[in-house]
Amino acid sequence: MANKAYLNCQTRLLAQEGWRKRLKETGFFDRLPVETIAVDDALGRVTAQSIYARQSAPHYNSAAMDGIAVRASDSFGAQESAPVRLQLNAVSAVFAPGCCYVVDTGDVMPPGTNAVIMVEDVHFDGTQAEINAAAAPWQHVRIIGEDIVANELVVPEHQTISPVDIAALLAAGLETISVLAKPRVAVIPTGDEIVATYRELKPGAILDVNSHMLAAAVRDWHGEATRYPIVRDDPAALEKAVGEALAANDIVVVNAGTSAGTEDFTATVLGRLGEVLTHGVAIKPGKPVVLAICQGKPVIGLPGYPVSAMLTAELFLRDILLERQKLPVLDPWQVDATVVRQVPSAVGVEEYVRVSVGNVQGKLVAAPLNRGAGMISSLTRAQGILSIPEGGSGLNAGSVAPVRLLRQSRPEQNLLAVGSHDLALELLGIHLRRRRGNLSLSCANVGSMGGILAIRNNEAHLAGIHLLDPATGRYNVADVEKYLPNVAWRMIHLAMRQQGLLVASGNPRQIQGLDCLTRSDITFINRQRGSGTRMLLDYQLARLKIDARRINGYEKEVGTHMTVAASIAAGTVDAGMGVQAAAQALGLDFLPVAAEQYDLLMNFAPHDDRMALIIQVLQSAEFRQEVEALGGYDLSNAGKLIAVGSAGTVMF
Amino acid sequence: MANKAYLNCQTRLLAQEGWRKRLKETGFFDRLPVETIAVDDALGRVTAQSIYARQSAPHYNSAAMDGIAVRASDSFGAQESAPVRLQLNAVSAVFAPGCCYVVDTGDVMPPGTNAVIMVEDVHFDGTQAEINAAAAPWQHVRIIGEDIVANELVVPEHQTISPVDIAALLAAGLETISVLAKPRVAVIPTGDEIVATYRELKPGAILDVNSHMLAAAVRDWHGEATRYPIVRDDPAALEKAVGEALAANDIVVVNAGTSAGTEDFTATVLGRLGEVLTHGVAIKPGKPVVLAICQGKPVIGLPGYPVSAMLTAELFLRDILLERQKLPVLDPWQVDATVVRQVPSAVGVEEYVRVSVGNVQGKLVAAPLNRGAGMISSLTRAQGILSIPEGGSGLNAGSVAPVRLLRQSRPEQNLLAVGSHDLALELLGIHLRRRRGNLSLSCANVGSMGGILAIRNNEAHLAGIHLLDPATGRYNVADVEKYLPNVAWRMIHLAMRQQGLLVASGNPRQIQGLDCLTRSDITFINRQRGSGTRMLLDYQLARLKIDARRINGYEKEVGTHMTVAASIAAGTVDAGMGVQAAAQALGLDFLPVAAEQYDLLMNFAPHDDRMALIIQVLQSAEFRQEVEALGGYDLSNAGKLIAVGSAGTVMF
Repeated sequence: MANKAYLNCQTRLLAQEGWRKRLKETGFFDRLPVETIAVDDALGRVTAQSIYARQSAPHYNSAAMDGIAVRASDSFGAQESAPVRLQLNAVSAVFAPGCCYVVDTGDVMPPGTNAVIMVEDVHFDGTQAEINAAAAPWQHVRIIGEDIVANELVVPEHQTISPVDIAALLAAGLETISVLAKPRVAVIPTGDEIVATYRELKPGAILDVNSHMLAAAVRDWHGEATRYPIVRDDPAALEKAVGEALAANDIVVVNAGTSAGTEDFTATVLGRLGEVLTHGVAIKPGKPVVLAICQGKPVIGLPGYPVSAMLTAELFLRDILLERQKLPVLDPWQVDATVVRQVPSAVGVEEYVRVSVGNVQGKLVAAPLNRGAGMISSLTRAQGILSIPEGGSGLNAGSVAPVRLLRQSRPEQNLLAVGSHDLALELLGIHLRRRRGNLSLSCANVGSMGGILAIRNNEAHLAGIHLLDPATGRYNVADVEKYLPNVAWRMIHLAMRQQGLLVASGNPRQIQGLDCLTRSDITFINRQRGSGTRMLLDYQLARLKIDARRINGYEKEVGTHMTVAASIAAGTVDAGMGVQAAAQALGLDFLPVAAEQYDLLMNFAPHDDRMALIIQVLQSAEFRQEVEALGGYDLSNAGKLIAVGSAGTVMF
Repeated sequence: MANKAYLNCQTRLLAQEGWRKRLKETGFFDRLPVETIAVDDALGRVTAQSIYARQSAPHYNSAAMDGIAVRASDSFGAQESAPVRLQLNAVSAVFAPGCCYVVDTGDVMPPGTNAVIMVEDVHFDGTQAEINAAAAPWQHVRIIGEDIVANELVVPEHQTISPVDIAALLAAGLETISVLAKPRVAVIPTGDEIVATYRELKPGAILDVNSHMLAAAVRDWHGEATRYPIVRDDPAALEKAVGEALAANDIVVVNAGTSAGTEDFTATVLGRLGEVLTHGVAIKPGKPVVLAICQGKPVIGLPGYPVSAMLTAELFLRDILLERQKLPVLDPWQVDATVVRQVPSAVGVEEYVRVSVGNVQGKLVAAPLNRGAGMISSLTRAQGILSIPEGGSGLNAGSVAPVRLLRQSRPEQNLLAVGSHDLALELLGIHLRRRRGNLSLSCANVGSMGGILAIRNNEAHLAGIHLLDPATGRYNVADVEKYLPNVAWRMIHLAMRQQGLLVASGNPRQIQGLDCLTRSDITFINRQRGSGTRMLLDYQLARLKIDARRINGYEKEVGTHMTVAASIAAGTVDAGMGVQAAAQALGLDFLPVAAEQYDLLMNFAPHDDRMALIIQVLQSAEFRQEVEALGGYDLSNAGKLIAVGSAGTVMF
């Protein structure tokens, strides 16, 4: 439990440069095993050496047109007024002057002929062919080797084979070629708490997802990955496992045991087996990295949190894997984006923040996702990774910073939904993509008020909101008009939805309503400040004159209905406020408190047809059915225009 | 042989739109077979439907730090001056007030606790733990479902699975998922002249390379390809083969028999089996295309020339294949480039020209490659495809036109060598890439004079030249100074090389020298006008007073030494002028005529370090050895500076 020091903590750049330099010195990028494979299997493989043609293509002189093959000199003098007649012959080994032969495209040029006259220019008359113009020597003839000559270079060394390369290789008479073998990468999961399948999971155990993720990443980077059995936290066992992996692989990845704790043996073991270049990198997440060379091969210790493991694999494994295969190490696809929230960061640490990225009214914006290193969902939902350099202390809201885009992200086609969390929004995203394949929708759950502010700052395309105005009993319009007085917005209705208390199935604690929450035997879980659900709770508590400070767990805030439901389903708390759909999803009981109006605040440029597409989805029968099936929703009026912002009336 | 008409010839755009529309109507993009596979095998596959979590992650409340787990209320009031002491207990099912428990990161929160105090903030004293500050409820606790909640969306429908998706799916308790089955595509080669292996090749036979290339392209586009046996030119056989392929596949490709000739049955047969939407598309190359729907499935007839087959597959197969798999149909990566030569084109036909692309002194230039539809090498060497719209009559030299870049091309890193052909240039390209992995070198063989003009027009980075000045007997400098009076160039020596007559092995025709070329029993093959080799020949003929018009085959011009050698090796001509290396490559006899100086004219911006890299290669022992081994080369002075252009003295 006590902290030991990292052996040799470095900045990311120093660590990467030192790593590459030492690997180069060991010959890692040069000693490349090769294998011989069929050309047919070579798509995407990399040639081990330059490949030269075994035969020429075409391999004979051929007619390039349908027509007659002639000796050009026999046609000289032919003209409209004085046609030349040639004798049509069957092809034989010996050429007779004044003869010609019928040929189709691709036919061998008969001996003695050196030109083709197109069929359109020939008048056939029994056994004779009449022509009205002279043929130039070699006209309409494809000569041998025109495309590829024997012994000529077909594909240079270290080129990735494409479909047309396959055609060229086969045309050049090659059926097998020598290619670089794919680097073999061992992935060794370690840890006493790690189990292999979800069926072995019990509290305190952690499912091994990292070795699967890292093996898939290795395959994505064109390597060959082998997952090894889980190794317990025991230096001798780890040393044995790494030794075995080294014998059969080109690279070994150990995950994890890389921190500086008492039960973290990776750095020590790798130091015993070879040389540790780096232990600890000044990045967040991902500090616990070990870079070592054992038996002349790279051995990488990666941190245990999934997000850290993936980010550090991209920093320290990907490029060396590609470079060893002579595959292009592509420059990252980077854009500058405006950060929508303040992102604090520690001086001296380079920080990576997963972000949603979208183009809102012509401005590229980046919305930070959950920064927890254990949050796999923040990686699956991210469009990009924002880097905060180690020199500063973070980024202010509104500052512009470089974002590395993730492979499949298309920020120009990504819609940003920032605001209140609702299960219907994810279905909206799915339905939008059904109608327009390249569209995506990212949801940031920052509550209704956060959504209004995001629209005001042009940081979101849409915001789900449900804000009750206590004075009028009406929803949303009052707050939007107050905070967006001069903005062109439209408000579209999505659904009426049931809010209430979520309690365990069968209601074992016999909770009857909000007044029960102050009972000393009841624990509660709350939603974050600024969320519509929190405001509804506080409104109802005030109405019922219930003192919030007397509710056990009122301080514990989470960001979504589903997280509230999960804690209740697990029995760690007794009640929480949320939508009926979340109760239904996890089989909880539901005590209705209020039906509320959930609307979408829209922020699109006038020429942007995506708002119409959203309204189409909202009004469709399939969407309505799917959302209502979640429980507690009424979409009778979905897609209806509720209100238009002041400037909006001129914009739309 | 007689021309029949195309059934329904259309513009490319009309053909594509009609094709997609009819396929949509048939449900081709909707009736999608699915299969269940292990999550571990799902990398790159596309989800068939939205996937929801089976379990929450984390699946229990856990310590997020090493330290002690406490009930937060037990710590209230603790401060420096009044520390609170808690009893260290072993974890049990029942919580005793005032107790605490040692926990490591990831450990289950003991019953009754709701906060973790970091180990750094705890003073351990025997069986007691002393703390100096109160803990906020739920501090340093990861709660159940924080990342993923059971029944929550993990991966939406029709998403391509990435390594982090695999992690998320496994964490959510999924071990198998339902994905879209890869479309099965049959590729049927047809034609009486087609043979399956190069061992069956004889004059008139054509090797089936297309079915391999098209199958690889299908795999590249994530489909599953099956190559079928070659079908003879017989309608009944073709009908049977297509029928069988339809039964086992989602898409059938027939290659070829798609033209309008008497032996082209594809359109007729497909019309019998279903509906032909298009026969003939107004593009070049690639006019003979058949688009049909048979038994509700797309059947595509592609033209026979490899270049035509590949281009039309990209136009009519790729996108429907991707769209059916719900994979993004990426916009082509397009740039505007200056065309270096006039490219004539017929009105009413959209033409595609393969080009080399490079950035010369800040200007992106496109150099057209050989336009023959049979030239596979023009596809393997191309960086891009230039489109000439059907409305005009071609492009003038210097005009700017859109070029679709091919997948792996990096025009910014491509060097353009335009000028005289020499075998050493390809080796130069290979050696450059050994030193700088992302560099490539494209060679356009337009002769020495063409090279000088390309340098003058900033259309090439380097030009190989060998031009004898008859007045001085010196090479290159006179012509370059004459044509590039105010240009910043440098001339670097590459090699002295032997030029001479290439004749068949053993010299069966007993050719003694240039004067034998006028013998009536000798046929000759020439190099193109403007090439140094042609100039050398003409210079020598004039010196010897030999009348070129008396040489059989003087009119037949080809573009490279190797093509000359190939015709002699095949016995279709008796002699040609070329370098000794070409004779050696094909085992020909060589009669020396002259040793000549081959230099590289260089055109680089002052800050461009690639010229220094080229000189490094030229001066390296490995390069010298490899080039001299080709035969007839002397690289003693390779890499030496020969001359500097007038403006050059200030530039470098």
